[in-house]
Amino acid sequence: MNYRNVTYALSLIMMIIGLSMLFPALWSFYYGEIEAWAFLLSSGAVFLVSLIAYKTTEMGDHLLIKEVYCIVSLAWLLASFFGALPYLITGTFTSFTDAFFETMSGFTTTGASVLSDVENLPRGILFWRSMTCWLGGMGIIVLFVALLATLGTGGEKMFQAESPGASMVRKFKPRISDAAKVLWRTYLLLTAGGTVGLYLLGMPLFDALCHSFGCVSTGGISTKNAGLGFYDQAGIQWAVTILMYLSGANFALYYLSWRDKTPRPFFRDSEFRVYTYLILLAVILIGFNLTTQTGAALEDTIRPAVFHVVSFLTTTGYVAADYTTWPLFSTLLLMLLMLSGACAGSTSGGMKIDRMLVMFKQSVLTLRHHLHPRAVFPLKLDHRVMEQEKIMAILQFFFLYIIIVMGGTLLMAAQGLDLASAFTAVAASISNSGVGLGQVGPGLGYGFLSSAGKYFLAFLMLLGRLELFTVLVLLLPAFWRRD
Amino acid sequence: MNYRNVTYALSLIMMIIGLSMLFPALWSFYYGEIEAWAFLLSSGAVFLVSLIAYKTTEMGDHLLIKEVYCIVSLAWLLASFFGALPYLITGTFTSFTDAFFETMSGFTTTGASVLSDVENLPRGILFWRSMTCWLGGMGIIVLFVALLATLGTGGEKMFQAESPGASMVRKFKPRISDAAKVLWRTYLLLTAGGTVGLYLLGMPLFDALCHSFGCVSTGGISTKNAGLGFYDQAGIQWAVTILMYLSGANFALYYLSWRDKTPRPFFRDSEFRVYTYLILLAVILIGFNLTTQTGAALEDTIRPAVFHVVSFLTTTGYVAADYTTWPLFSTLLLMLLMLSGACAGSTSGGMKIDRMLVMFKQSVLTLRHHLHPRAVFPLKLDHRVMEQEKIMAILQFFFLYIIIVMGGTLLMAAQGLDLASAFTAVAASISNSGVGLGQVGPGLGYGFLSSAGKYFLAFLMLLGRLELFTVLVLLLPAFWRRD
Repeated sequence: MNYRNVTYALSLIMMIIGLSMLFPALWSFYYGEIEAWAFLLSSGAVFLVSLIAYKTTEMGDHLLIKEVYCIVSLAWLLASFFGALPYLITGTFTSFTDAFFETMSGFTTTGASVLSDVENLPRGILFWRSMTCWLGGMGIIVLFVALLATLGTGGEKMFQAESPGASMVRKFKPRISDAAKVLWRTYLLLTAGGTVGLYLLGMPLFDALCHSFGCVSTGGISTKNAGLGFYDQAGIQWAVTILMYLSGANFALYYLSWRDKTPRPFFRDSEFRVYTYLILLAVILIGFNLTTQTGAALEDTIRPAVFHVVSFLTTTGYVAADYTTWPLFSTLLLMLLMLSGACAGSTSGGMKIDRMLVMFKQSVLTLRHHLHPRAVFPLKLDHRVMEQEKIMAILQFFFLYIIIVMGGTLLMAAQGLDLASAFTAVAASISNSGVGLGQVGPGLGYGFLSSAGKYFLAFLMLLGRLELFTVLVLLLPAFWRRD
Repeated sequence: MNYRNVTYALSLIMMIIGLSMLFPALWSFYYGEIEAWAFLLSSGAVFLVSLIAYKTTEMGDHLLIKEVYCIVSLAWLLASFFGALPYLITGTFTSFTDAFFETMSGFTTTGASVLSDVENLPRGILFWRSMTCWLGGMGIIVLFVALLATLGTGGEKMFQAESPGASMVRKFKPRISDAAKVLWRTYLLLTAGGTVGLYLLGMPLFDALCHSFGCVSTGGISTKNAGLGFYDQAGIQWAVTILMYLSGANFALYYLSWRDKTPRPFFRDSEFRVYTYLILLAVILIGFNLTTQTGAALEDTIRPAVFHVVSFLTTTGYVAADYTTWPLFSTLLLMLLMLSGACAGSTSGGMKIDRMLVMFKQSVLTLRHHLHPRAVFPLKLDHRVMEQEKIMAILQFFFLYIIIVMGGTLLMAAQGLDLASAFTAVAASISNSGVGLGQVGPGLGYGFLSSAGKYFLAFLMLLGRLELFTVLVLLLPAFWRRD
């Protein structure tokens, strides 16, 4: 492995992170906050360190696969390390652990917070929290690839390692940097549309921007303690629901619809259809459960049911009402939806619906194979036959995901959490959703955890965001051996 | 599908079930209980019905695969239906649901009970409970195949459908009925040894026999309310631990050791080694957890830790102390061990260690494949390369197992159970272990559940005992279509 290649790429990515700190600085200046200087200082420091690293290294022509995994995983780790600086300099957090947890939670669009009270924070800090989410939503590497057109095959591999699902857009765009640009352009448009919409519905501009960031990145970071419960106007809550729903779709579909000037790609895509039906089904189940168990009127249950189903399935984690008072059937269903996640190539986390779809289809085929042992039943998705190797990789992914959730729950239990809290803390972290039940329910914050617990959950967030393999290969002893 | 083949085979199997009711009748006569007549009546009725079915049908030369699945699944269903008769006639249960639940729980070696007080039951009933476990442990079909040598390839397929793991012994014995006989002979020897051992250590003969049945079948049915807590002498508890441990090993290993007059097959078998290491690891973790969290002395924690680790890993479900007062880390670990289960080809339930081993090995190979995308890494188990198709079937099995556990937990939550109770009720049923946490903890019984809840759990027991596919194919609409 050539460490100079790794350092070179990382230095460029960190320059972007450094420059992005100028945006919260602007908001701080606008609101006359002293914290503006903290952002300028952090920005300058990160940019300077990156520049030195950049000037002292050089990139070879060819990137090894090991170097790619290193760059992508370390880019997220370093971003969370440097991104923690503004929190530390402003004194928002006095412990590095807390600042690192908050930043990793932001970049991975988890939205889990050490804080339980955010309303007294300076605007600059609130904006930086939302901005880390937004940068991480479409992906730090995708942004990097979009900005630098000269990366060649190395860029392609990095793109793939960070965003396995989003690479679908590659089929239609020959150049990798074009694909990355298309994704970011869609992302910018959604964000702009969301901001304008929320502003017109009555949110102040600052809050509209931050919540639009929170929706399109499916990060779910809010500027209010009560989250969307603060803005309980029906208009705003439905707008947020729609924005989350749109962000849970595969971004390649927006490109195809725009190119062909028709919404047909959405209807043709079986994953998108299942995504929509799944929301409808979950809303019906929860609506039924709430009306029969709690005696609530049907019309009062629909809006919160739709809101939270979409919020958890897209792994946004916005909260509009105290869902933890719902019967266990409903809350557990929300937790399982969150483990599933929305569409591949969206900004959502979880296992992704296309994987679930493939595994369910394959299950039926396996049963049919039991009846006709000599027949071959190929799995088709959108009229294309899927190779056995890919199906196996998906099943393997599921196995690792579940084992990590089970093992993680055990470890959190060892930290003294009860079963519901331990399980949902792990599920909310690895699915990049951020809120759970019990001790990690909405508005409570993760501040009570030990440092070990916080680092472990931050690690799970990274694992989940990069969909396991990219991070796990670094744990193989063989990775660090010389070839 | 030829229903006459199905009826013919089922009638023969039910004759065995009918005849087996004579054993509890003998105990009842011995103890002078009036219930003896109930067993004679049930036995006669079942035998008569079976005889009529037998006389009016005939078996063709060739069994279709569909007929095999039908016979095996229905054999277990019918056995639980007819096996419920003695409970109903003696008035032990007034509801058919309860009697059916208890019998299915017995035959599938789950050992979950509707009853919380068993000590006042007649001896005949206590014996029948233990005997259903014992018959189901090695398998109703395996017994049927062992008794009837004339089944040919149909018997082979049934054997395979009931006991995927136990069919390993087939590699060494050419005839299927010989393999079945070898398995049952080993089973009888273990049972006899266990009975003598427990008797010599101070248990009354009746209890020794019933508990030996409970151990070797990994059913965990006891004649005492406190289970093995009643017999808290160290000698008896260690003997039970050893007996459960031996029953969790692949029975083919006993045959090989006996044939070659050496214990080497055990040491050579990687599944058996992992089984043993897993017990050691879990005991160390629980011992550490208990001494640090509850302040118990190390020497006081070892015996209960070993006992419960072995009891849950083998899915026996015997209880010797109130493990529910242990910290969540320890109790949750026991629940996860129970989902894993012991060795393939043993009488234990769960997913089985060989599957877990293959999936963990394959995970590492998948990661190595990510580093070297063009290299091929074959999975080896005991120096033999495993085909991709088999690995995929195992991963598929894992997916279905977890989805059923998750969906089942949701359904039990809808029944009003809390998270720990809902999850462990489902896990204890599908793994054929029988006890869990919370409302389904030791000594509490499943009597509080609704009828729907009881039938659902009974269905999960059957699913788990036949390792999913054999039962699930019957749910395919294609199964019932004419070919």
